[in-house]
Amino acid sequence: MSSRIEVGVLGATGMVGQNFARLLADHPWFKLTWVGASDRSAGKKFGDATSWRLDGVMPESVAGLTVCECKPGNAPKLVFSSMDANVATEIEQQFAEAGHIVVSNSKNFRMYDDVPLLVPEVNGDHLALIAAQQKNRGWKGAIVTNPNCVAVPLAMALAPFKKYGISKFITTSMQAVSGAGYPGVASMDILGNVIPFIGGEEPKVEEEPLKILGDLESGKVKFLNAKVSAHCNRVPVVDGHTLTVSVELAEKPTREQLLEDIQSFRGLPQERKLPSAPPVPLVYMHEDNRPQPRRDIPRDGGMTVFMGRLRPCSIFDWKFVTLGHNTIRGAAGAAVLNAELMHSEGLL
Amino acid sequence: MSSRIEVGVLGATGMVGQNFARLLADHPWFKLTWVGASDRSAGKKFGDATSWRLDGVMPESVAGLTVCECKPGNAPKLVFSSMDANVATEIEQQFAEAGHIVVSNSKNFRMYDDVPLLVPEVNGDHLALIAAQQKNRGWKGAIVTNPNCVAVPLAMALAPFKKYGISKFITTSMQAVSGAGYPGVASMDILGNVIPFIGGEEPKVEEEPLKILGDLESGKVKFLNAKVSAHCNRVPVVDGHTLTVSVELAEKPTREQLLEDIQSFRGLPQERKLPSAPPVPLVYMHEDNRPQPRRDIPRDGGMTVFMGRLRPCSIFDWKFVTLGHNTIRGAAGAAVLNAELMHSEGLL
Amino acid sequence: MSSRIEVGVLGATGMVGQNFARLLADHPWFKLTWVGASDRSAGKKFGDATSWRLDGVMPESVAGLTVCECKPGNAPKLVFSSMDANVATEIEQQFAEAGHIVVSNSKNFRMYDDVPLLVPEVNGDHLALIAAQQKNRGWKGAIVTNPNCVAVPLAMALAPFKKYGISKFITTSMQAVSGAGYPGVASMDILGNVIPFIGGEEPKVEEEPLKILGDLESGKVKFLNAKVSAHCNRVPVVDGHTLTVSVELAEKPTREQLLEDIQSFRGLPQERKLPSAPPVPLVYMHEDNRPQPRRDIPRDGGMTVFMGRLRPCSIFDWKFVTLGHNTIRGAAGAAVLNAELMHSEGLL
Amino acid sequence: MSSRIEVGVLGATGMVGQNFARLLADHPWFKLTWVGASDRSAGKKFGDATSWRLDGVMPESVAGLTVCECKPGNAPKLVFSSMDANVATEIEQQFAEAGHIVVSNSKNFRMYDDVPLLVPEVNGDHLALIAAQQKNRGWKGAIVTNPNCVAVPLAMALAPFKKYGISKFITTSMQAVSGAGYPGVASMDILGNVIPFIGGEEPKVEEEPLKILGDLESGKVKFLNAKVSAHCNRVPVVDGHTLTVSVELAEKPTREQLLEDIQSFRGLPQERKLPSAPPVPLVYMHEDNRPQPRRDIPRDGGMTVFMGRLRPCSIFDWKFVTLGHNTIRGAAGAAVLNAELMHSEGLL
Repeated sequence: MSSRIEVGVLGATGMVGQNFARLLADHPWFKLTWVGASDRSAGKKFGDATSWRLDGVMPESVAGLTVCECKPGNAPKLVFSSMDANVATEIEQQFAEAGHIVVSNSKNFRMYDDVPLLVPEVNGDHLALIAAQQKNRGWKGAIVTNPNCVAVPLAMALAPFKKYGISKFITTSMQAVSGAGYPGVASMDILGNVIPFIGGEEPKVEEEPLKILGDLESGKVKFLNAKVSAHCNRVPVVDGHTLTVSVELAEKPTREQLLEDIQSFRGLPQERKLPSAPPVPLVYMHEDNRPQPRRDIPRDGGMTVFMGRLRPCSIFDWKFVTLGHNTIRGAAGAAVLNAELMHSEGLL
Repeated sequence: MSSRIEVGVLGATGMVGQNFARLLADHPWFKLTWVGASDRSAGKKFGDATSWRLDGVMPESVAGLTVCECKPGNAPKLVFSSMDANVATEIEQQFAEAGHIVVSNSKNFRMYDDVPLLVPEVNGDHLALIAAQQKNRGWKGAIVTNPNCVAVPLAMALAPFKKYGISKFITTSMQAVSGAGYPGVASMDILGNVIPFIGGEEPKVEEEPLKILGDLESGKVKFLNAKVSAHCNRVPVVDGHTLTVSVELAEKPTREQLLEDIQSFRGLPQERKLPSAPPVPLVYMHEDNRPQPRRDIPRDGGMTVFMGRLRPCSIFDWKFVTLGHNTIRGAAGAAVLNAELMHSEGLL
Repeated sequence: MSSRIEVGVLGATGMVGQNFARLLADHPWFKLTWVGASDRSAGKKFGDATSWRLDGVMPESVAGLTVCECKPGNAPKLVFSSMDANVATEIEQQFAEAGHIVVSNSKNFRMYDDVPLLVPEVNGDHLALIAAQQKNRGWKGAIVTNPNCVAVPLAMALAPFKKYGISKFITTSMQAVSGAGYPGVASMDILGNVIPFIGGEEPKVEEEPLKILGDLESGKVKFLNAKVSAHCNRVPVVDGHTLTVSVELAEKPTREQLLEDIQSFRGLPQERKLPSAPPVPLVYMHEDNRPQPRRDIPRDGGMTVFMGRLRPCSIFDWKFVTLGHNTIRGAAGAAVLNAELMHSEGLL
Repeated sequence: MSSRIEVGVLGATGMVGQNFARLLADHPWFKLTWVGASDRSAGKKFGDATSWRLDGVMPESVAGLTVCECKPGNAPKLVFSSMDANVATEIEQQFAEAGHIVVSNSKNFRMYDDVPLLVPEVNGDHLALIAAQQKNRGWKGAIVTNPNCVAVPLAMALAPFKKYGISKFITTSMQAVSGAGYPGVASMDILGNVIPFIGGEEPKVEEEPLKILGDLESGKVKFLNAKVSAHCNRVPVVDGHTLTVSVELAEKPTREQLLEDIQSFRGLPQERKLPSAPPVPLVYMHEDNRPQPRRDIPRDGGMTVFMGRLRPCSIFDWKFVTLGHNTIRGAAGAAVLNAELMHSEGLL
């Protein structure tokens, strides 16, 4: 562990930042040595500047770090970012210019042509965009992003269908409250209730999977040519976004073929045994009432995506349920896996 | 009130039966004088035979009724039925043969050619099937049914779209626990969770709206010729089923036209000012995060269906949210409104 | 209704203010014609300045009122106050000096010697403090307060025990989230959880009942001479605070005597049939698992206090459960009932 | 692991039985090789006979065991019991007579003079009762029990106070739904609600701690001579019982002394490093709003008991909050720790 790579976190005191702190506290490759936050927190100990909102208690190894301003300089080369969208553009750019590798959970750079939007099991090859990014922008560093918390399980669940030609998919999400940060959703709004709207969410869910599932052609991502429609809802669940999905395919595989494709689905993280990689990235549950967020989401540290109820759709071809941990696989854990992939590619 | 019509309830001690008891306790036209239940309860006072599961307390006027066996004879001509599906076929048939009007919430007879499956605002004219029913079956009485608790708001929300030619619709439901009766869903299964499956529900949701939205032609219902796909889920909500819906139309109205159609939608219950009719059957809410089950479902005694978020769908034409009270508008209240419609037609 | 008394609300846009708006929208004696809020809202229509957080929708009669600054002058003589504690002292004082009757839900003046802290069924006679208040302070108007939302059901439930000499009582509260205002408790904090602490609550719960249950002697309130200990907790309930209580008495009545005392308990509001008075202020439920907040709290518009499970306590004399609606009987409804009592006394 | 002790579970298909299966699946000392259940299940594979109700999935090593009838004979010497109370007396007795060590979670034998009711950190020495038990009853085997799920954290939290002379304690519990087994509490009853009653619970909570905290004198347990009063409630929490406690002491330690006693509290399980022993059995949390069930209960596999908010009580001496995992530390985990203690004593 003595030769672990030093890493930092931008926006460390927020909810996603706290998840980074937890995931990195015992990481075999990375060592969290630097935390950046707003000027208000800078100079304090992380333990004093941060109201810990996650289950359990703050890792001791992190509590004693001194919070820095979010400026490049003394930060390690590799920084994870969970900056608020309203400041992420400027700050992440400053870090990339200054030579840092910014592995970001923020939405700001996700849809740029020269920025990888990664789900390592699905499109790890999109890391090739970094070369163009550095050339275009004159950066010594780079920005790599992970998708929105709904887009991750959606893209992963659809990945095995891709070879059959995905032409349309429609999804309804039932999203956990932890996705809204802290304090996020007021308890008065969600106890015993459903909120059929999440600001800004549907465009991301409709757009991001097309890039993730796109093919790298001549150094550019050719988006998946499919129509997408999303209905996003908040439900009284702590962690785990559940999605219903109907999908139309150009080719017509049997259910057996699809199940085989889903269950044998593996990617670079599994091949290379990356530390955060779940052994089986897409777990198909055969019970008719699974997956369920409260019961299934903790498996393998929150990095598994679950599927169930694969059955014919009377409008499209197939319909199913999928589930992913929104703050781990859909946020901090996604970024950590991205960094692990980059390290295994020699990019750090 | 002295000349109110005497009515009975079959299966009175169950959850839907209790809802009947509550709705009929102060009804201006009907007077609950007879309650039927299993042999186990027969002979006891309703108040002793029944564990009251609804909010509030049992209406006193009902507590003193003596529970009878579910046999025709001394029962009033008009009986509401909330029998379990495994006994409803035989018992409802016995009552209809014996001359009773059975207004049933059970699923058993819903899809028969000669049985009306009513949402009074939408297809009150389907009551004309009764003539064929009595002729075919040699019954003096009749059976009239209301739809499944998801099918009601779905059919009602789609009714204003009908004139534009509905060709496809897909829905995901987020259903309240009260729909499963008592004890129904175990708290261990649903607290902080989503269950992506409800046994037997999806076929009903895919089938029933096509009959409800069908046209009466030459004494028969010609089903709506549309493709339907449903994803049904249980969420930790007490009352109120929330649905996301995407719909494809043959014609292409503007959003303004549709909103006008939705907001001006009225039916026979409103025209005739039936006692249980909500003044506006389909309430469109303009706030972007409404309707919500906990906040909206109590309006007008649970008989209003709500809609919101009407917006273009990138796959079909339009998408929206709809919400209805599952145990009132989707069960006991639906049957009471059916009976009121029949009374206003002179059929009782 | 044409001769209704015009009233105003200070702090009208907050949660308690919205409850005032709802309760006053159709009040037979009072007409809400004036709403005051922060400078930020002043000049806007109430409907535009206010995000409605209660179930259902904003009453139309209120939506059109123009929000004023919280300054005396054009406000009606009678104003209800739901000001934040950090500004209530100054503003309520200004209004009282200027001749207004301030019926306040704020905590600031509750414990002053010359300010009535009322539960009208229990200590309506404490209104006599107003004379001293006006004399001491040189006010033409007056301030009258209602207790904390836990203190109300606690004092009311203990009132029938008072004649037996209450020497000690200990209580544990399980409090609803609506008591914390909006946004109040974060959903991340309370979903599937208990928070065993509510800032500043226990001192109020231990102190206020002693004043409410005190006797007016020579124009002053002689506090009840009892020891009190409170444990306050937040639970995932929307409305309704549930309390367990153990109480020690000087005399030793039988359970039958106590039940008779509880069930026959009535006060001035019942005697004078005040508009907001519940017919039975203290409803004892004999089922062994009642009262329950979700099932019982809506009765009689939220003004009923419930009791149940009266049984011997092996340490003190008796133990029981009590329940009250925190935002109605424990806040806005309490203040409205106070004003009704004052009107019936000719004090407005 | 090859020399692990073979163990069985009586009542293996129920909720507590499933917890046993999970805890024993990877136990370093014990190997689950035998599962007993009702005749209805006997002969089937455990995986087929059991609807898995816990989070996650059934351990594979257990799924393949064949369910046996609950009769001694082929069962291993050590059996854990989670039999229903209505059959536990007879079956556990049969096993003890036949020479089995029955480590039981059932309530039936807890209060017998010659049966240990253990919390290993508190009264491990009560195992000495076994000698009398075997002599009195002529058994070759023995029955050892663990307390009720509320009594465990209550006794453990009070243990550090014992040396100061506990004379009275009063507690209000806020209990999780998992304590009621499956299906247990209906979701209709508990969503957004509190149920102020749990059948048969209060007598156990008032009685068992006095035995646990009692002293072994001349081979008998002399119960703690204290008065106890309990108020038991169900709240919408999945796992973890939260208790408020007020306690009166003969001596008057300072808060610092008590905190020191609590934080330094250790027992035989810690001393001997038993596999299921938490490193710190009683964790005091200094944050004013902790412990909380959802956030704290998973620590150390559910075996830690938490305390917080130690402060003076204006009626007794001290009041505080305590929290324990009801299905682990309060049921299956408690029994496993009992068996580990017995093994460390050479009693297996």
